[in-house]
Amino acid sequence: MHIVCVTVKVKPGMGDDFLKAIQENRAATRHEPGNIRFDILLSAEAAGVDDPEEYLLFEVYKTREDFTAHQQTAHYLKFRDTVAEMMAEPRKGAHYTVVEADPL
Amino acid sequence: MHIVCVTVKVKPGMGDDFLKAIQENRAATRHEPGNIRFDILLSAEAAGVDDPEEYLLFEVYKTREDFTAHQQTAHYLKFRDTVAEMMAEPRKGAHYTVVEADPL
Repeated sequence: MHIVCVTVKVKPGMGDDFLKAIQENRAATRHEPGNIRFDILLSAEAAGVDDPEEYLLFEVYKTREDFTAHQQTAHYLKFRDTVAEMMAEPRKGAHYTVVEADPL
Repeated sequence: MHIVCVTVKVKPGMGDDFLKAIQENRAATRHEPGNIRFDILLSAEAAGVDDPEEYLLFEVYKTREDFTAHQQTAHYLKFRDTVAEMMAEPRKGAHYTVVEADPL
């Protein structure tokens, strides 16, 4: 099991466009054979009018290779290009393995 | 649904002690009526000998109030005190709501 947590800060005013793009990416990713889940979470703190919206993408793949394969899909590449100009700062990805968890 | 992601960096040499403490905390937390899941994840990157071990705790509660209640339980307070000296840096918690996800 390979987990990727991606933190995304979206420029003010671009939240709706980003949401559309990430939901489209999620829907396609969930059809990848190596993807187990793809949760779109919204920060419950960064809610100020002047603050960018902050998302956490909680992505689970069977293996690290399945994540690498995800990054080569047409839907991921389209997503990456579509949102490039919406980022308030570069996305941060962190990789994890499971120590102990409920079924993912 | 209220999600809390806690990033923990453990001092070198204290990984085993931390793991025991967090697993004990997880087991008790999973019996709280407001807790839905409590996943212990280990960074797949911070694996150098000189680096602290880095964990992500992915905790899901029915409501924010359930998380507040969690922080007042005996097992949480014991965990907090037990690991206080094991932290390489202060823990960072981030709160999220669900936009779109598989069942949590």
